[in-house]
Amino acid sequence: MVDTLRVLGISGSLRKASFNTRLLHIAKEMLPAELSLEIYDLAGLPLYNEDLRKEVYPPELEAFRQALKAVDGVLFACPEYNYSVTGVLKNAIDWASRPEVGAPPTSPHALFNKPAAVMGVGGLAGTARAQLHLRQIAVFLNMPMLMKPEVVINNRSKPAFDEHANLIDQDAKKFLGDMLQAFVPWIKKFKD
Amino acid sequence: MVDTLRVLGISGSLRKASFNTRLLHIAKEMLPAELSLEIYDLAGLPLYNEDLRKEVYPPELEAFRQALKAVDGVLFACPEYNYSVTGVLKNAIDWASRPEVGAPPTSPHALFNKPAAVMGVGGLAGTARAQLHLRQIAVFLNMPMLMKPEVVINNRSKPAFDEHANLIDQDAKKFLGDMLQAFVPWIKKFKD
Amino acid sequence: MVDTLRVLGISGSLRKASFNTRLLHIAKEMLPAELSLEIYDLAGLPLYNEDLRKEVYPPELEAFRQALKAVDGVLFACPEYNYSVTGVLKNAIDWASRPEVGAPPTSPHALFNKPAAVMGVGGLAGTARAQLHLRQIAVFLNMPMLMKPEVVINNRSKPAFDEHANLIDQDAKKFLGDMLQAFVPWIKKFKD
Amino acid sequence: MVDTLRVLGISGSLRKASFNTRLLHIAKEMLPAELSLEIYDLAGLPLYNEDLRKEVYPPELEAFRQALKAVDGVLFACPEYNYSVTGVLKNAIDWASRPEVGAPPTSPHALFNKPAAVMGVGGLAGTARAQLHLRQIAVFLNMPMLMKPEVVINNRSKPAFDEHANLIDQDAKKFLGDMLQAFVPWIKKFKD
Repeated sequence: MVDTLRVLGISGSLRKASFNTRLLHIAKEMLPAELSLEIYDLAGLPLYNEDLRKEVYPPELEAFRQALKAVDGVLFACPEYNYSVTGVLKNAIDWASRPEVGAPPTSPHALFNKPAAVMGVGGLAGTARAQLHLRQIAVFLNMPMLMKPEVVINNRSKPAFDEHANLIDQDAKKFLGDMLQAFVPWIKKFKD
Repeated sequence: MVDTLRVLGISGSLRKASFNTRLLHIAKEMLPAELSLEIYDLAGLPLYNEDLRKEVYPPELEAFRQALKAVDGVLFACPEYNYSVTGVLKNAIDWASRPEVGAPPTSPHALFNKPAAVMGVGGLAGTARAQLHLRQIAVFLNMPMLMKPEVVINNRSKPAFDEHANLIDQDAKKFLGDMLQAFVPWIKKFKD
Repeated sequence: MVDTLRVLGISGSLRKASFNTRLLHIAKEMLPAELSLEIYDLAGLPLYNEDLRKEVYPPELEAFRQALKAVDGVLFACPEYNYSVTGVLKNAIDWASRPEVGAPPTSPHALFNKPAAVMGVGGLAGTARAQLHLRQIAVFLNMPMLMKPEVVINNRSKPAFDEHANLIDQDAKKFLGDMLQAFVPWIKKFKD
Repeated sequence: MVDTLRVLGISGSLRKASFNTRLLHIAKEMLPAELSLEIYDLAGLPLYNEDLRKEVYPPELEAFRQALKAVDGVLFACPEYNYSVTGVLKNAIDWASRPEVGAPPTSPHALFNKPAAVMGVGGLAGTARAQLHLRQIAVFLNMPMLMKPEVVINNRSKPAFDEHANLIDQDAKKFLGDMLQAFVPWIKKFKD
């Protein structure tokens, strides 16, 4: 029997009917047998404040950090707001990138060396610009991100979803499925 | 008598002793006669959520929007977290970039055509990477950003501030002063 | 009688049937009365080499520099190769960004403060990624680039051109026309 | 007996006394036992032109492609010109990214899945901006780039080299050595 690889799914949108959050649920239905996916809600995190981290250390942060530490990989659903990642997603990454209070500043953070993949649905460019900002952020974090296939879903030229939020863009569905398949060996490559 | 040009100063850090927030206060002391500067605190804004915008519309948002609408320009103090702008700053921009509830989606947002300038203090690259992400965001917002001189202050090779948070890096001080001077005609260029 | 504003058109592709080069010719046909457009061919420039600049200074470089100095603005046709500007375009910019031999290193280069606009046709993202790299390059050059409307033409979902290389994508044509109209006051804003 | 891993070193500068090219020679002296390094000169490549590729196919291109195909990894010495990679380097990548003439468009190019590392010496930011553009380019190429340690050498605050072009910045030397060590397992990770 083989252990499944655990993945944490994170969406940069807090909107209930978000198509990007929806992508995580669709990914869950299409998951390869080797993967399991837990979706984590970023709504509870406060705005990043270094004073808060040192003085209060809200329990939401420790929960988020522990959730990240427990998994083998991270799957980002990455909306594009104003040609970049959302403030919500960046705020969560800013928290996750900081070591535990009291730990030496060079101790590895919760995303260090954690394999990741990204997908997004948006306007004409399908969140491509935001995903590239996320990839730049990942360089600092030392978080190896799967490169191909990219999942950039244009929801403007024609609707990618039907009225029940089913993904009806068959090309997008194929890219998503192929990306999830490619994520398995990618995670294994970086697992000790 | 000439009206002064009003500028809103925004810092991407919420830490009380933030050097980037400190830069705004230093800029205030060095301000050209034609400018006035009000510093706005982003701590009160909730995480961006489109549902919240439509259903509740928290008063903090309207206050922020009105503060932006009232000024002739914006001065960003831009820390660099993880090779990008902070989640705190991006979250504020995400809110500011949305039209008023009920307004047509094409109606101009509070940053549209608003002249802006940026400065930052950080590690070796002096927040250069974050500032370039901010500039990409500004393209979408149609927010013309002053290009020269750039204020990218390296606080690692040697301390840029003394123990009373005075800016002792004289090169940095000169760049900051020159940038503020250059901001005046830049604002006028885009003022109707 | 009003003097027309002179614009130099530069394409990042050397291919004879390049759609991006074609855009420059189409722009020429749609030009507002206040503008004139000369298209410059980058094929003659050698690869940038600082030794060559100091020792030989090929006549092609001086011709390019003079062509830039003579105009009021620059219009880039910007293909996307490998998620960035083409080497051909970057090579031309690298040459143009250097002062004349013998001039002090701080003397303004041929693109300094030169208003510019960009357009491109490519795959799904319509060269958006390459255009954003060009905009980052422009920050260093202090070359103010028009922000809106952006001309990013997707030639993959459906053909943007007919078999005679006429632009048949009517939305793209409208964006192109609007951009050229907006370029006129943009140039004037930065003209002494 | 263990086969060494072969690496091709490529510099984005053609200047004879280029500090970035010099870094490749210094890397060669510091090379871990598992690596061998051949330095390739990009001066002979013509400007990229798709017509040329199809009609003439200059022998310099085939030589470059074969040199890339023969190695297990690529080491980029990446100068920063105008906040981006040099036109010289981008031009070489544009050639390398194209399949052989006659090959199906989806056949893998010479950089596909080729592990790479980057280093650079420049002004205050140590070519950090150019290196990040190169990393974006690598996403399209599916070329996995080593993330840490980064070698970004500031040659402005104080000279990094002595008058004989020896690297005297000891921190930089350590980063370079550590990066070369980290490159070995990185290459192995992606080697079939």
